[in-house]
Amino acid sequence: MITLTSDFGSPYPAAMKGVILQQTSARLVDVAHDFPRQDVRTAAFWLREILPYFPPAVHLVVVDPGVGTDRRALVLRAGEHAIVGPDNGVLVPAARVLCGFGGSGSENGGSVGKNGRLSSDGQSGTERRADSFGQSDSHEPLEAFEIHVEDPASATFHGRDVFAPAAADVHEVGVSRIEEIGRIEPISVDSLVDYRFPEPTIEGDVVRGEVLVVDDFGNAITNVSGEVGSGASAAVVDGVEVPVVETFAAVEPGECLITVGSHGYLECDVNRGRGDEAFDLEAGDSVTMELVWE
Amino acid sequence: MITLTSDFGSPYPAAMKGVILQQTSARLVDVAHDFPRQDVRTAAFWLREILPYFPPAVHLVVVDPGVGTDRRALVLRAGEHAIVGPDNGVLVPAARVLCGFGGSGSENGGSVGKNGRLSSDGQSGTERRADSFGQSDSHEPLEAFEIHVEDPASATFHGRDVFAPAAADVHEVGVSRIEEIGRIEPISVDSLVDYRFPEPTIEGDVVRGEVLVVDDFGNAITNVSGEVGSGASAAVVDGVEVPVVETFAAVEPGECLITVGSHGYLECDVNRGRGDEAFDLEAGDSVTMELVWE
Amino acid sequence: MITLTSDFGSPYPAAMKGVILQQTSARLVDVAHDFPRQDVRTAAFWLREILPYFPPAVHLVVVDPGVGTDRRALVLRAGEHAIVGPDNGVLVPAARVLCGFGGSGSENGGSVGKNGRLSSDGQSGTERRADSFGQSDSHEPLEAFEIHVEDPASATFHGRDVFAPAAADVHEVGVSRIEEIGRIEPISVDSLVDYRFPEPTIEGDVVRGEVLVVDDFGNAITNVSGEVGSGASAAVVDGVEVPVVETFAAVEPGECLITVGSHGYLECDVNRGRGDEAFDLEAGDSVTMELVWE
Repeated sequence: MITLTSDFGSPYPAAMKGVILQQTSARLVDVAHDFPRQDVRTAAFWLREILPYFPPAVHLVVVDPGVGTDRRALVLRAGEHAIVGPDNGVLVPAARVLCGFGGSGSENGGSVGKNGRLSSDGQSGTERRADSFGQSDSHEPLEAFEIHVEDPASATFHGRDVFAPAAADVHEVGVSRIEEIGRIEPISVDSLVDYRFPEPTIEGDVVRGEVLVVDDFGNAITNVSGEVGSGASAAVVDGVEVPVVETFAAVEPGECLITVGSHGYLECDVNRGRGDEAFDLEAGDSVTMELVWE
Repeated sequence: MITLTSDFGSPYPAAMKGVILQQTSARLVDVAHDFPRQDVRTAAFWLREILPYFPPAVHLVVVDPGVGTDRRALVLRAGEHAIVGPDNGVLVPAARVLCGFGGSGSENGGSVGKNGRLSSDGQSGTERRADSFGQSDSHEPLEAFEIHVEDPASATFHGRDVFAPAAADVHEVGVSRIEEIGRIEPISVDSLVDYRFPEPTIEGDVVRGEVLVVDDFGNAITNVSGEVGSGASAAVVDGVEVPVVETFAAVEPGECLITVGSHGYLECDVNRGRGDEAFDLEAGDSVTMELVWE
Repeated sequence: MITLTSDFGSPYPAAMKGVILQQTSARLVDVAHDFPRQDVRTAAFWLREILPYFPPAVHLVVVDPGVGTDRRALVLRAGEHAIVGPDNGVLVPAARVLCGFGGSGSENGGSVGKNGRLSSDGQSGTERRADSFGQSDSHEPLEAFEIHVEDPASATFHGRDVFAPAAADVHEVGVSRIEEIGRIEPISVDSLVDYRFPEPTIEGDVVRGEVLVVDDFGNAITNVSGEVGSGASAAVVDGVEVPVVETFAAVEPGECLITVGSHGYLECDVNRGRGDEAFDLEAGDSVTMELVWE
């Protein structure tokens, strides 16, 4: 199985699929091709949230503001998964979670390993932090490989001409045998460009966080772990008190709410409406919530 | 085969696919994920029009304004098809047609069973109405099952955590053996939340209908059966006479027309343009047509 | 394998897939369904650029402003590929390239045959022009077939009711045995409606071209072969000098550039921005570039 993720819109992903299907009969599954252009942060967030739901697969990711520079082309091996894409950090948060690192609210994850296989050790949450990659008794190692590219600074369409063929090669040879692909060589994981999501600050009842992404429903997903708001009855945001509830249906249609979304973070939402508009928030905005306890 | 339909946009459907693919190697086919948010009517219309074209399959449908309430999670068995989704009426019009009920212009259908298998009995049109579900010599029975959900009023992402696993289970056990799935139990079809499309009223040559949906071409599809306009040369809509024609090409590019669309209903269209804009119509608007006969 | 291309948006393509899957278990791959409505030129461009990357397949194409007229329904055989769609020119540029005709900057192609299989003869570029179809030692012949349609001028949804079943039939019988399908008969390729992209004019250092399409990144792709700009350091467009560079990264983010895109044409682009907005260009606009040599 090969999943495909890009910011290409349409129809460029089809060219990648054609190239792959010349090399393999693998199942192809689109994650998304409409991520904001060259926005490493948004893609890194969604990949981290979604890839752990997949069975072992090769994940092709092309969100690549550095195409045409000498940024490296990578294959990461994370347990039984492989991720193929550019060395700009976009692959790393997902790779950490696929290896079993990270947990809700930590700078390394923010989401519990949701894949049955990975979370079967029962470890989750904030108590475990992995400040660096590497082997561990309870986690899979993360391993990195560089794809040799003839002329990295060419105007070539790397998604089609570099990453898609590499993803097909990894699928054909098998994730456990990446080393056998000729033009791929191991590199140190410490040399990878990393990407870390911002951390909220908490002073008493005042939480200063940031909107990580706004989803297609208009939910403004913050970087504040749901545990922070646990037990609160409301939060004052921009001078307005908004109820903290367990479900959208706890407030009337059209009303604002704060809840723990499916990713484990506090979200600024509207029941049957758009939270981003009601709260006037977009990705990257800071948001201050003063928690109210009954 | 599992089809997927939602109002999730991107990239949430990918999480459902990952979950499904952990359980089954079934073929996955997207119907649509861009239906208007929490709009049961529009999704119900399209599912009824499109699912009958598929061979026997499991259809996963998540358009669910009631997530977080105690609305039930359902599996409907309609002949060799199964539909999995929330108990809010969105599944029912399609299920009726998959069972062989319904016909153009009736409140139960509006479309002839187009699936070769279903329409092979030669029955169609308005003469047959099924005012309730149930067994019949010439139709498949509709059967309903409730999926037991641990805590239905949780903030869980039910598409991913409830409906997708259930669809995979139904696929793996087989549509004829849904009863064998542990957490699923039969319920009365009479207890289902139903959805009925509005009926037009006809007085002499004056038809008062409603726009059911506007498609991506801008065609304003009404609830008025094509048979009603059969033989008319024109219709006066909002004081303007518009030709009633068999094909778009019968009028010049940019001109308005009324025709019987591929769904069997009268549509307010523009040749190579958008009917919704030219007629100033959107879904749910009432539309009065005074038919003109030569 | 069957690829699908249309201007249908959503959810009509799903009806075509259902119809196909009643006839075959072929793999289905979407090329795009969001092409501009009834825009033969844009679809013809992208099909020509993308289909050659696929392994042998049946390509279903429904961009069909003439539905409801007596335009013919076609199957083209281009080597091991078949293309099914309307006789309005949209299929022809891709078919030429799949047969091995055409090359960058020629009116017959504009792109080198990129499919390994097709370009293995080493022929490419402008030196070879095919002014008509037909057999050739080094190319595959193009063969055309008409699909008999009961009532072509009906209001039927031809994508679903004519082209999708034909594509499934071609897949099932095999591209080499199209003749065996009952309702399909050979026609002369000379009778096909053709589509030719406009040619640029070159006078000294002044190139007058046209924007063929704007892609989803906002890159304004012209009809001027990259070879024309080879070695130039800059080009004056609308009185403004813009650098001609090999990669986006050669200029600062937000700055304009002209480069040879992945299709082999000069493009008016912006690094991490939209070229169409910065240059005020849209598809079909003429663009004059005065090349500057160091």
